[in-house]
Amino acid sequence: MSHPIRLALVGMGKIAHDQHVPAIAANAHIVLAATVSRHGEGVPSVPHFRDIDDLIASGLAIDAVSLCTPPQVRRAIAARAIAQGWHVFLEKPPGATLAEVAQLRAAADAAGISLFASWHSRYAPGVEPARAFLADTAIRKVTVTWREDIRVWHPGQAWILEAGGFGVFDPGINALSIVTRILPRPFFIEDAELDFPANCDAPIAARIRFSDDAGLPIEADFDFRQEGPQSWDIAVETDRGTLMLHDGGARLVLPDGSEPSRKVALHGEYAGLYHRFAEIVRAGTSDVDIAPLRHVADAFLRGRRITVEPFVE
Amino acid sequence: MSHPIRLALVGMGKIAHDQHVPAIAANAHIVLAATVSRHGEGVPSVPHFRDIDDLIASGLAIDAVSLCTPPQVRRAIAARAIAQGWHVFLEKPPGATLAEVAQLRAAADAAGISLFASWHSRYAPGVEPARAFLADTAIRKVTVTWREDIRVWHPGQAWILEAGGFGVFDPGINALSIVTRILPRPFFIEDAELDFPANCDAPIAARIRFSDDAGLPIEADFDFRQEGPQSWDIAVETDRGTLMLHDGGARLVLPDGSEPSRKVALHGEYAGLYHRFAEIVRAGTSDVDIAPLRHVADAFLRGRRITVEPFVE
Repeated sequence: MSHPIRLALVGMGKIAHDQHVPAIAANAHIVLAATVSRHGEGVPSVPHFRDIDDLIASGLAIDAVSLCTPPQVRRAIAARAIAQGWHVFLEKPPGATLAEVAQLRAAADAAGISLFASWHSRYAPGVEPARAFLADTAIRKVTVTWREDIRVWHPGQAWILEAGGFGVFDPGINALSIVTRILPRPFFIEDAELDFPANCDAPIAARIRFSDDAGLPIEADFDFRQEGPQSWDIAVETDRGTLMLHDGGARLVLPDGSEPSRKVALHGEYAGLYHRFAEIVRAGTSDVDIAPLRHVADAFLRGRRITVEPFVE
Repeated sequence: MSHPIRLALVGMGKIAHDQHVPAIAANAHIVLAATVSRHGEGVPSVPHFRDIDDLIASGLAIDAVSLCTPPQVRRAIAARAIAQGWHVFLEKPPGATLAEVAQLRAAADAAGISLFASWHSRYAPGVEPARAFLADTAIRKVTVTWREDIRVWHPGQAWILEAGGFGVFDPGINALSIVTRILPRPFFIEDAELDFPANCDAPIAARIRFSDDAGLPIEADFDFRQEGPQSWDIAVETDRGTLMLHDGGARLVLPDGSEPSRKVALHGEYAGLYHRFAEIVRAGTSDVDIAPLRHVADAFLRGRRITVEPFVE
């Protein structure tokens, strides 16, 4: 299309206001044409609708939607948008189940529109340099430590610990989206332990042991109960020393102590996501990598479950 | 290959002796060349090995393996077999995780061997006639009732209620393999409830509500605690009346009361599976439909979990 992509932002919660609105404003190829939210606030001077049916009924010219609602309700909205011929940007995780994502992909392909399963952490500045370093390095062990305080980072987001809300995998899937990007070979779960609060349907912590065909040990420690210092770290032991990704991929320290990510300009993860979205819309393609979501489903399927004390926010 | 497929059967438990051995014996294109099992018994006059490494070390000429071990240990054996260039037949479910099945498929493709994810229930005599009937019929509702007594059907199979053993989805995935075959459109989970015995890591019962893009209601009731009459039934309400599949797909009753499956010769589900395996080996292709396993992983991911009384066999 010759005009900028006219985008409606659906689900005006914390992530929409903190990340999507500024990233869209900074992208010359995308214009925020509408916001949609039952409870959340809109953006000054941008038309606001209560739900996607109201948006459709308005007749406003829309090319694409970006969905920031909780995963449990995302599929139905995405299906409505695809039926309108609108391109669809899905916040992570791309859905509450793998089957619905496969079905959205098939519907998008049939409709000739672009579907984007976004993984914002892959756009953190340390990720691509880490991938490049590891491409030709023998890897011995990977340790993922993702420990954050749910009360600090997810206030009022009760849906996270409800069924389909992913629990600690809501942040943990960010780590998995990085590890699946930087490691040169696919891997799979060998063993997992999930801690479920007695009053919740999603885990508050998880410990997972992965491996690959070469027997590489990959361990992940996800915990939502971390008080004090927070950790979003990935350590990769190689035959050239240990590579460290800190701060959710923002900071890369190579074994020699150098920090290549400091040399690149920081555009922000969501700027990278919207750049990519505009790119696939222009190219008429989709970008749907289900590997991180598949690992989460596998952890639920394969894991032992431990009941822990109830969680009260 | 011009000679019959020389097949090693791995994991000599109940299903191997009850179904695989007779189906192989009845197939002119396959010969049972070896059995492999740490605890199970072999077959008279067929070489027996303790594990796949012993089989490999023996130098016996093998073309294919059929894996009947519990899903938790299947991947490593399958990977060893693929590395030998052997074709691989996987009992259902094809693995303990979706990622490992994807990886086996990639390894099989790279090695140029055939991988078969078997779904024996799809070879029940009522399934294909049901599929044909439903292909051009408006469907209103689907009800799956799969209720069996774990103590009767799975004596001594403690792995079923352990992590990665699938629990009630071990039989339930058979129902899902039929429903995904007979319905003309893909579907996805909207809601699920899983009952976990307090002392088990896999559910003993599950109630699942699926839907598809057209809003078709599909309900599944899986229960391992069924005493008295057992149920393996699928009811499909259509605008031409209700179609019933009984006995795990063995018996089809169409809305007019006719039973087309009675007209076809009964070769048995495992005869059908080995016929198909020989066919894909000859054609140099693979047959790996992950849809049933994906629904199970989705149920664990999406479901509410209810703790019920401990299970003691």
